[in-house]
Amino acid sequence: MPTPLFPLPGDKSEQESGTSFSPNFGSDGLITAIVCDATSSALLMVGHMNAAALMRTLETGEAHYWSRSRKELWHKGATSGNVHKVISLATDCDQDALLLMVEVSGHGATCHTGQVSCFYRNVLFDNGKAALQPNGAKPLFDPKEVYKD
Amino acid sequence: MPTPLFPLPGDKSEQESGTSFSPNFGSDGLITAIVCDATSSALLMVGHMNAAALMRTLETGEAHYWSRSRKELWHKGATSGNVHKVISLATDCDQDALLLMVEVSGHGATCHTGQVSCFYRNVLFDNGKAALQPNGAKPLFDPKEVYKD
Repeated sequence: MPTPLFPLPGDKSEQESGTSFSPNFGSDGLITAIVCDATSSALLMVGHMNAAALMRTLETGEAHYWSRSRKELWHKGATSGNVHKVISLATDCDQDALLLMVEVSGHGATCHTGQVSCFYRNVLFDNGKAALQPNGAKPLFDPKEVYKD
Repeated sequence: MPTPLFPLPGDKSEQESGTSFSPNFGSDGLITAIVCDATSSALLMVGHMNAAALMRTLETGEAHYWSRSRKELWHKGATSGNVHKVISLATDCDQDALLLMVEVSGHGATCHTGQVSCFYRNVLFDNGKAALQPNGAKPLFDPKEVYKD
């Protein structure tokens, strides 16, 4: 039987106040990874990791995610050059989410649209209706040039 | 047939660059809500919203989440006083995550442990082993006093 990469979660008290890192992967084997800029603290993206992606991230210091659309391990920046160098990693009270503080290399953009952050549109709510408004940030690269296929 | 609270997601281009807010709820009916401090940008918690919680948040300006453990609509701060006043709301490229920038009233603490942020422990990795280390922040309230039951 293979050794699990991380210990299984203990009881609530151990999860919340212990020193054992026992990430709570969901029934799909994934944990939510919140990615923020290490300098500005701004939210860049929300990703997902399975145990292998998390271990690879810890071992290399570069963020690896699980691509849910491509169903494969995803070394962020392998194509675009926009690698996430992990400055620090944290987890939350019930260890079902991770926070990565990162430095972004390459264009300094995280989103596949070329934007610095995936969160480039605000939700406005008026008269019972919600709509999106771009926050005005300009893309730092042209996706058509970076992603050839 | 009841009218859905939000339009169904359009095609990829519309989702990524349109002005229609069509949140991509998962198969469990929930969308991930990332909650950051509007002043410091620091990550406070990761929550989940169903359509009703999101609409209630938009209508009241105070964050409502879906409590997955209690399986009920959760007006954050109703018990603790630590209400999340929503300063701005954003969504990401594929509209499957939300970013709430909030002001926290009451004790100014978001985590049920009394900590300002749920992310109060760092993950350290050394010699192939990961462990947690508290970041040194002190709780701002005593959970035993605030949550009587």
